[in-house]
Amino acid sequence: MEQTKYILDEKQMPTSWYNIQADLPEPLPPVLHPGTKQPITPDDLTPLFPMELIKQEVSTERYIDIPEELQDIFRLWRPTVLYRARRLEKALDTPAKIFYKYEGSSPPGSHKPNTAVAQAYYNKQEGVNRITTETGAGQWGSALSFAGALFGIEIKVYMVKCSFYQKPYRRIMMETWGGKCVPSPSPDTNIGRKFLKEDPDCSGSLGLAISEAVEDAVSRDDTHYSLGSVLNHVLLHQTIIGQEAKIMMEKIGAYPDIIIGCIGGGSNFAGMFLPFVKDKIDGTKPDLRIINVEPASCPTLTKGLYAYDYGDEAGLTPLMKMFTLGHEFMPPPVHAGGLRYHGMAPIICHLHRLGLVEAKAVHQLGTFEAGITFARCEGIISAPETDHAIRVTIDEALKCRESGEAKTILLAHSGHGHVDMAAYDDFLSGKLQDYAYPEEKIKAALAQLPLNGK
Amino acid sequence: MEQTKYILDEKQMPTSWYNIQADLPEPLPPVLHPGTKQPITPDDLTPLFPMELIKQEVSTERYIDIPEELQDIFRLWRPTVLYRARRLEKALDTPAKIFYKYEGSSPPGSHKPNTAVAQAYYNKQEGVNRITTETGAGQWGSALSFAGALFGIEIKVYMVKCSFYQKPYRRIMMETWGGKCVPSPSPDTNIGRKFLKEDPDCSGSLGLAISEAVEDAVSRDDTHYSLGSVLNHVLLHQTIIGQEAKIMMEKIGAYPDIIIGCIGGGSNFAGMFLPFVKDKIDGTKPDLRIINVEPASCPTLTKGLYAYDYGDEAGLTPLMKMFTLGHEFMPPPVHAGGLRYHGMAPIICHLHRLGLVEAKAVHQLGTFEAGITFARCEGIISAPETDHAIRVTIDEALKCRESGEAKTILLAHSGHGHVDMAAYDDFLSGKLQDYAYPEEKIKAALAQLPLNGK
Repeated sequence: MEQTKYILDEKQMPTSWYNIQADLPEPLPPVLHPGTKQPITPDDLTPLFPMELIKQEVSTERYIDIPEELQDIFRLWRPTVLYRARRLEKALDTPAKIFYKYEGSSPPGSHKPNTAVAQAYYNKQEGVNRITTETGAGQWGSALSFAGALFGIEIKVYMVKCSFYQKPYRRIMMETWGGKCVPSPSPDTNIGRKFLKEDPDCSGSLGLAISEAVEDAVSRDDTHYSLGSVLNHVLLHQTIIGQEAKIMMEKIGAYPDIIIGCIGGGSNFAGMFLPFVKDKIDGTKPDLRIINVEPASCPTLTKGLYAYDYGDEAGLTPLMKMFTLGHEFMPPPVHAGGLRYHGMAPIICHLHRLGLVEAKAVHQLGTFEAGITFARCEGIISAPETDHAIRVTIDEALKCRESGEAKTILLAHSGHGHVDMAAYDDFLSGKLQDYAYPEEKIKAALAQLPLNGK
Repeated sequence: MEQTKYILDEKQMPTSWYNIQADLPEPLPPVLHPGTKQPITPDDLTPLFPMELIKQEVSTERYIDIPEELQDIFRLWRPTVLYRARRLEKALDTPAKIFYKYEGSSPPGSHKPNTAVAQAYYNKQEGVNRITTETGAGQWGSALSFAGALFGIEIKVYMVKCSFYQKPYRRIMMETWGGKCVPSPSPDTNIGRKFLKEDPDCSGSLGLAISEAVEDAVSRDDTHYSLGSVLNHVLLHQTIIGQEAKIMMEKIGAYPDIIIGCIGGGSNFAGMFLPFVKDKIDGTKPDLRIINVEPASCPTLTKGLYAYDYGDEAGLTPLMKMFTLGHEFMPPPVHAGGLRYHGMAPIICHLHRLGLVEAKAVHQLGTFEAGITFARCEGIISAPETDHAIRVTIDEALKCRESGEAKTILLAHSGHGHVDMAAYDDFLSGKLQDYAYPEEKIKAALAQLPLNGK
């Protein structure tokens, strides 16, 4: 019998996060204040974040300890399993070895709680009892609601409206853990009211939901804000995924030739590849390929501009240097709500700029087709976001069938699709479509960049 | 740090099923032919089941080998994790030690695939390419669809109508794995058409859905039938749960004082407790308590009659000696669709009759309340069926707080509730109700028992 699952005892779970900022060939460009356009200071961020997270955001320490109380909580679902997709390999008749690290076994069903509980923890340490946030597909909102339940923190979630109605079960999950969830744009904020007035049917976007959550947080003394992706400290918390994967693969004497993951804000995939990209930076593994997969309808890395832009729709957040489609860009309502974001984690953008990672854009019909193949071989029904990574994994495995190469592929599997079944229903009943590359909308949004696209 | 999760490597997975029929103090009463009322023969069952399953149904071998191909498939999700519910213990301020074995990590999210893949395997061995079945909450139908995908078998599922509409995601899961699912009563069978004619709004029942699936199977030469609970071979396949739990608890030097699980047809809980009840039968653990938890609105073990009855609504199945509420009893539409069954696994009934296991009935509001407490402590959002077992687990832990006893409680956690969020929504928004004990309906149904209730 051949091994299917590779597991680690909870005693072998990493006890620190890996910080890529210690090993970058060039430092990240500074983050700028949205008003002064000068580099921000920690004080600028204290209305939003606890000081420990602000410190992590700019730290250049290679390893940052995970507090014991947090490790205890992680052990509710970590370490997560590394699977060898033997049935998929057989179905594809490929010599490739496909591994996937599965984050869907966490209570909210994705990688998101890795940072949600960390952020809730540091907020609680600082006496914060209420946190606002935004959510796309609902993975992040439910993860933060789960974290709120564990620490007794009130959570208010602004959920992108098209996902709110596409995925009602996500709202109910948030409520089951005690969170409060409203569709964005909402009547609860100035920016939300403005958008509703202009277009009551506005389907929303992550950028707009961020604006609402930030406005809510800064308007109340008792409230902080939490972001589920993009920022350095979020990616830091997710590195536990890649560190676990590395330990597990070392134990079986394997190392990936290709690592594949989907990117919305980029935290799941960065969490997987950062501990590996280190080996590419230091020259140990020069041939390692790292493929970021994004939707063709929201092609940030493949079609965006590398420039300073806001993280949100309304321009409330600091300016980050990143690949962007323009903060005013409203992506088509694809089912992978978690990938509908105009920008991208500055760390991923920086690495892309340096040629250390690649990017690919794929259309949604092909991703669902891949997801169904995966489900019928491996059992797991994946989130529509993850299906993007599965599409490219299958494509790379099929290339191996052509070339005869037995490459080792490592897939970052971000979560299950149990709460996204309506998307599968639409696909199976032929109701889904691919969207043309929204060239004009992106052009218009890029014309509105602050600092004139510098 | 204290251990939260106990895991087994897949190499340590049990390689045989435990057959309680080898150790029963008295043999099970014979199963009778629905026509002749005489003990059935293997030949009577061949239109429905493959011979290997018929043999397992009556075997008195203590251990039955799990074929290697099946073990390979089990390793997609097994061995499952044994958790110590430390956060729940703390929230309840109880000296009790609460363990739970979690079956929700299987692809369909419950214990059901343990037997689904086994049944699909033996059918495939016999050349069967189409299988019909019924499903209540949808757990079983999706598990068999998953199994069908693995073995290339066409699956047709008759789903109890009230659950079909309460839980649309379950249908979509079945379709994602390639299964076909229709609401029962359906226009596809004679018995379905009869019920629809009498009452087009009939909400259905497991008994009626079984009738439809059996009628479909016997009317086609290429088709077999599969049952997800009740029968001896189904319980046999589920014993892998209890065997794993026993190995894990032995490794940490623990043994349960109380084992708790929910029962619909009884397969999940029997799968957990059968390897332990063995120790009660042989006198090693005389004080072990085994508590079967059922809905107060469908109180088979606590209010039913021990008599011969049909497994289905229409009287197509063999007669089994079991606790029953009468095969014509249509339970109120509680959200725990998997527990809405008039009968009970003959093995559990026999053990109950012999005083080896107990039973408790609980109302649904209290079960959701318990499920929410569990979710906010342990993270996992449980199936409404499982919430029944959690209710009694919490009650027993609270009794320990009163008495000061540090009892060891083992909860059979049958699965997650990701696809049952509408039920939580109804509970959280105050729309759910408890149902009065349906005394008159049960009395009327019991008056219709075959063999006059013998």
